[in-house]
Amino acid sequence: MSIERVAKQIEFIREIDELKHVLRQSYLMNGSRRENDAEHTWHIAVMALLLKEHAIDDQLDLKRVVHMLLIHDLVEIDAGDTFAYDVKGYEDKWDREVAAAKRIFGLLPDEQASEWMNLWLEFEEGLTNEAKYAAAMDRLHPVLHNFYTEGKAWRAHQVSVSAVKARVAVIAEASPVLADYAASLLEQAVEKGYLLPE
Amino acid sequence: MSIERVAKQIEFIREIDELKHVLRQSYLMNGSRRENDAEHTWHIAVMALLLKEHAIDDQLDLKRVVHMLLIHDLVEIDAGDTFAYDVKGYEDKWDREVAAAKRIFGLLPDEQASEWMNLWLEFEEGLTNEAKYAAAMDRLHPVLHNFYTEGKAWRAHQVSVSAVKARVAVIAEASPVLADYAASLLEQAVEKGYLLPE
Repeated sequence: MSIERVAKQIEFIREIDELKHVLRQSYLMNGSRRENDAEHTWHIAVMALLLKEHAIDDQLDLKRVVHMLLIHDLVEIDAGDTFAYDVKGYEDKWDREVAAAKRIFGLLPDEQASEWMNLWLEFEEGLTNEAKYAAAMDRLHPVLHNFYTEGKAWRAHQVSVSAVKARVAVIAEASPVLADYAASLLEQAVEKGYLLPE
Repeated sequence: MSIERVAKQIEFIREIDELKHVLRQSYLMNGSRRENDAEHTWHIAVMALLLKEHAIDDQLDLKRVVHMLLIHDLVEIDAGDTFAYDVKGYEDKWDREVAAAKRIFGLLPDEQASEWMNLWLEFEEGLTNEAKYAAAMDRLHPVLHNFYTEGKAWRAHQVSVSAVKARVAVIAEASPVLADYAASLLEQAVEKGYLLPE
């Protein structure tokens, strides 16, 4: 094991510290400030472990799910957080994120760079059960943050329930139970005025 | 699957949002502000995945390691972060943390409460290879943060290299390669004046 290899891996650890500076639109559950990507990522990794019994696929490779989640937002270090309901920002999102993935995962030793890049692509493509379940966590999480902050980010951006429903549709592919739960929160959110009706 | 069970799990997710408010002594690598426990936890979970090839035990259950890491600091929501070199704070640390673990994991459905409590205890006891490797990540991480911020937290607390060496000794039990790496950082840190010589 060469010391250069360890040094390269540690340099990656140093680089990704930047994720703690990428702010999301969601507020912490006490509403005090916006959440950053590192905090969000930790939270959804815990959710993945906690809620696995609700996944349709009871043979999920949970280590793979958690690995995907822990690295899924690293591209935002370069590409920034694109608000889910920002149509304009989405136009070049993919190009920006692929370039970011190449640079950031490219810091790793070659075979790790490929492995981690592929995991990120698997998450983005959303075709495997692991990727679908991981996406379900990523989509459910801001619903919780918005619900518990009385729709703070939703209201700031005048988001409608139909936009959120489209965004969380993927949850049903991974877990009907969690999809029902999310749907009931959205219904209450409209009633309480956190979200615009469709 | 009862909706009450999902609601209980989501209530836990809501509760642990508080980890994002628990500040550590370490500064972010750009020195701009102190790191919180959620950020730290995300970062060491990534380290665990990245550095596993350096573990003595090549049969480590990495999912178990990551699960342990993701929940290891939850007790600090109630018990607070005890600075590693605060002798007084350590006197009642264990009692405070056990009470916190009982309350926080107790929010979960019964069998999950037991499982997660046991994982936390396994981490704290540090006897299994998974717990040792997890601890190695947890101890190496603040060394990196201090090194890259020119010893910002070490200097603020006038920490000596011997205190840090005692603190990171566990790394060698999990990974001699990483222990050597940490030792070389500490040596440089003394040379550069980030740490007091012994």
